[in-house]
Amino acid sequence: MNILFIGDIVGSPGRNALKEYLPKLKSKYRPDITIVNSENAASGKGLTRKIYHEIHEAGADLLTMGNHTWDKKEIFEFIDDVPDLIRPANFPDGNPGKGYIIKKVGNKKIGIINAQGRTFMPPIDCPFRKLDEIVEEVKQETPFIFVDFHAEATSEKLAVGWYLDGKVSAVVGTHTHVQTADERILPNGTAYITDVGMTGPYDGILGMDRDVIIQRFLTNLPARFEVTTGREQCNGVVIQLDNQTGRATKISRISINEDRPFFD
Amino acid sequence: MNILFIGDIVGSPGRNALKEYLPKLKSKYRPDITIVNSENAASGKGLTRKIYHEIHEAGADLLTMGNHTWDKKEIFEFIDDVPDLIRPANFPDGNPGKGYIIKKVGNKKIGIINAQGRTFMPPIDCPFRKLDEIVEEVKQETPFIFVDFHAEATSEKLAVGWYLDGKVSAVVGTHTHVQTADERILPNGTAYITDVGMTGPYDGILGMDRDVIIQRFLTNLPARFEVTTGREQCNGVVIQLDNQTGRATKISRISINEDRPFFD
Amino acid sequence: MNILFIGDIVGSPGRNALKEYLPKLKSKYRPDITIVNSENAASGKGLTRKIYHEIHEAGADLLTMGNHTWDKKEIFEFIDDVPDLIRPANFPDGNPGKGYIIKKVGNKKIGIINAQGRTFMPPIDCPFRKLDEIVEEVKQETPFIFVDFHAEATSEKLAVGWYLDGKVSAVVGTHTHVQTADERILPNGTAYITDVGMTGPYDGILGMDRDVIIQRFLTNLPARFEVTTGREQCNGVVIQLDNQTGRATKISRISINEDRPFFD
Amino acid sequence: MNILFIGDIVGSPGRNALKEYLPKLKSKYRPDITIVNSENAASGKGLTRKIYHEIHEAGADLLTMGNHTWDKKEIFEFIDDVPDLIRPANFPDGNPGKGYIIKKVGNKKIGIINAQGRTFMPPIDCPFRKLDEIVEEVKQETPFIFVDFHAEATSEKLAVGWYLDGKVSAVVGTHTHVQTADERILPNGTAYITDVGMTGPYDGILGMDRDVIIQRFLTNLPARFEVTTGREQCNGVVIQLDNQTGRATKISRISINEDRPFFD
Ligand SMILES: [Fe+2]
Ligand SMILES: [Fe+2]
Ligand SMILES: [Fe+2]
Ligand SMILES: [Fe+2]
Ligand SMILES: [Fe+2]
Ligand SMILES: [Fe+2]
Ligand SMILES: [Fe+2]
Ligand SMILES: [Fe+2]
Repeated sequence: MNILFIGDIVGSPGRNALKEYLPKLKSKYRPDITIVNSENAASGKGLTRKIYHEIHEAGADLLTMGNHTWDKKEIFEFIDDVPDLIRPANFPDGNPGKGYIIKKVGNKKIGIINAQGRTFMPPIDCPFRKLDEIVEEVKQETPFIFVDFHAEATSEKLAVGWYLDGKVSAVVGTHTHVQTADERILPNGTAYITDVGMTGPYDGILGMDRDVIIQRFLTNLPARFEVTTGREQCNGVVIQLDNQTGRATKISRISINEDRPFFD
Repeated sequence: MNILFIGDIVGSPGRNALKEYLPKLKSKYRPDITIVNSENAASGKGLTRKIYHEIHEAGADLLTMGNHTWDKKEIFEFIDDVPDLIRPANFPDGNPGKGYIIKKVGNKKIGIINAQGRTFMPPIDCPFRKLDEIVEEVKQETPFIFVDFHAEATSEKLAVGWYLDGKVSAVVGTHTHVQTADERILPNGTAYITDVGMTGPYDGILGMDRDVIIQRFLTNLPARFEVTTGREQCNGVVIQLDNQTGRATKISRISINEDRPFFD
Repeated sequence: MNILFIGDIVGSPGRNALKEYLPKLKSKYRPDITIVNSENAASGKGLTRKIYHEIHEAGADLLTMGNHTWDKKEIFEFIDDVPDLIRPANFPDGNPGKGYIIKKVGNKKIGIINAQGRTFMPPIDCPFRKLDEIVEEVKQETPFIFVDFHAEATSEKLAVGWYLDGKVSAVVGTHTHVQTADERILPNGTAYITDVGMTGPYDGILGMDRDVIIQRFLTNLPARFEVTTGREQCNGVVIQLDNQTGRATKISRISINEDRPFFD
Repeated sequence: MNILFIGDIVGSPGRNALKEYLPKLKSKYRPDITIVNSENAASGKGLTRKIYHEIHEAGADLLTMGNHTWDKKEIFEFIDDVPDLIRPANFPDGNPGKGYIIKKVGNKKIGIINAQGRTFMPPIDCPFRKLDEIVEEVKQETPFIFVDFHAEATSEKLAVGWYLDGKVSAVVGTHTHVQTADERILPNGTAYITDVGMTGPYDGILGMDRDVIIQRFLTNLPARFEVTTGREQCNGVVIQLDNQTGRATKISRISINEDRPFFD
């Protein structure tokens, strides 16, 4: 089974890059399922119903989220209606939406879980325990389990990766918007990368207008962060799982930009 | 001019990896100067005089530091004596040591600056302003300027990179211990990478024993973090500068581990 | 010289309480100068020009601010025009407004300084050094110096208090919105209190609607914090300075609410 | 029923002050139970077995803790043996010790719960939900319920107070070491104070040596915080509960120091 995962879509440049590269990536990697982190898809913060459908139609089978889940208010109106959208599972009770899903992929099933870290982030429920609980449930149904762990600190991401090694097929990090070069198969068969990176502007800071962010660092004055324009990038990973065991056999980074053009 | 930079050396495994790979890297890349971040060189935290000399003799021309600078008390006794050691320049007045140095490299000079971020880190002096001030001074003497920016947040690192684009030859990030895959030459000629990654254990969490760190996340109980053992990795970058202008012409990641063995 | 200081005015209930009690407090304590922290005066966040004048007309001689200084955008248009408004002095260069002022009080002068802490707050300039610098300047003109130190951590506030003991007439804390009971004259003559407390709703959480804040703690869902209604409170301090030396001779807490009614 | 609660005992000065004033306070207020926060009792950080007994013998019926619970390693050896010691209940599973206790007081019972906040503190379990759960259990046995909520942020402490108003007899805050002046009976009968304050040195910063802490703020250099010496203070509250309903009828602050001497 091949999984294609695309990192945080930032604004319309991110959606454009997705529409441009997803067909090419699909024809190159032949994924059985395509997952797209969409927490920044609507003007850099959150997700609207329209954009949910736009990303879906661009070829995503499932959308994951993160700390920006609730930034656009209208998500409260559709998150419990749409089938293919998950938000971090360890958000506290009382949060709408769901944190994992089991999807059919040909004659198999795959469980996809979204979770969020707590280091340098708001104090939510323990991600380790919540992941344990869900993995326990999902593995009754399938050995194919994919985790999008949305977190800031490299230590917490590595800890989740190693903690789940041998229990899930893959743990990929999101949130820092910068792809890491540490993709690997951990000793017990879990594919891991600390951060997949973002999809959107290539010349911004995390996709946002540089000057505004630099001014913010210089003065601490309030600033309206806006998605920047110009050249685009697309970052992701493709992961190959053993069809019998669900163990990962390969993880490859995808990083497309003007300095690293796409090749078939 | 070629610069070889090796990321955070963690404990004796890091020093071993340095001794093993530095000669090979030097013969492959022929650096004019070799810089090694050493903030974790002594048992994962700080630096001793003995280890300063050990790293020097292993082939480092200059050692940079970070938030762990003062973790070993004896550094207060030698930091003002040894020639080739800098700590973040934006540490407040009253901190021993120095934050930048100008070194002779053949018939040229290069300024090397160490600075530290503030996002998710202690409140020290403004790194942007301190870098401005030092860059202004150094560029009176040489257009070759290298910055090790030690910081947690990808946004702050990218902001410093873009802020200094065209003013310095290179900005490389350290501290997160995970190499990023975003190395590039920014439009005005500054080589940039968000994090160079660490040198030390390959199967730890940031180089430290995994079980201890996972238990810490699970229980929040105090724990004695120790450098772990086993397989090693070495992470760095090599940067090529135009000999006339000091602008970067190339930046390449170095990532050596069992999954990516070293090749001449 | 008597100084009356009223803590963070929160929204219209805060302004109402100010208008109700300030005349009574003035006739009771006969202050030579009245200072009012106004960072929350406009709907709980920031200050407008209209409300600046409203507080002024209610009897304040000077308004101080804090981390909410820039929350209402229109302040950028008037902060450099109005005479009696200061914001934290250690905001970085590039911030409009000023951080201290010297005012005439009868035939004397008094310097008033506003500064902000960094613990659990954004990384701005060092408050200790900035205070040193301004105190040095102001004391050339007058021994009467009053500091509103706006900070979260009790340790940082106590540190500033003790640091300035004997150098200024008074250090009063603001920001936590809860009055502390530790008012005292430090050994070298500086009046000190960790927090003066807020002026506004008596039955809110820091002046804001309780249910919204409790839901926020329970779910981490976004919430629109609004100033609550109902009973009001007024918190402040009155400080007496020796007319010759500027040393404090007395500090008394003012805390008015239904449980502690105002008495002449 | 009368409850005497004494705030964070800091080091030997704190234990001395406790031994000096507890007998006097007991003879003045005739408490049915005396509770002492002891997280800083052993040299400012943590608790030893010897000091547990010392505080017990000084007249405490129960010791509560906080974020410094585990600072002295030997506590792991005795916390599960000694009867009258609780630590924050919302520490994650896997933490030794217990978070609440039901004690006999004459012919009645009282439940005492210790919990810890998360704002500006490590990410542990949700204090609101854990308190809900324990209160539900305890109120099967008794309407007398006392909560020591150990937290940094005034907002979180007020939120817990209002959240439990009418469900418990009292919520008192600890941790900031500075007594607040906001003691009151909330509308549904719960006694509340944001912070009780500390017991120990009167002229330190949170009980610790001032110069060391000021140097730390100035330089961010590592520093060995030590309990300071000199004059002492004792801070606490006494709370009166209705013997039938368990509702609070009165809460009074206790604040003893050279500026506010003890009076019978
Ligand atoms: Fe994101
Ligand atoms: Fe995110
Ligand atoms: Fe490091
Ligand atoms: Fe570091
Ligand atoms: Fe305020
Ligand atoms: Fe504030
Ligand atoms: Fe404490
Ligand atoms: Fe504490």
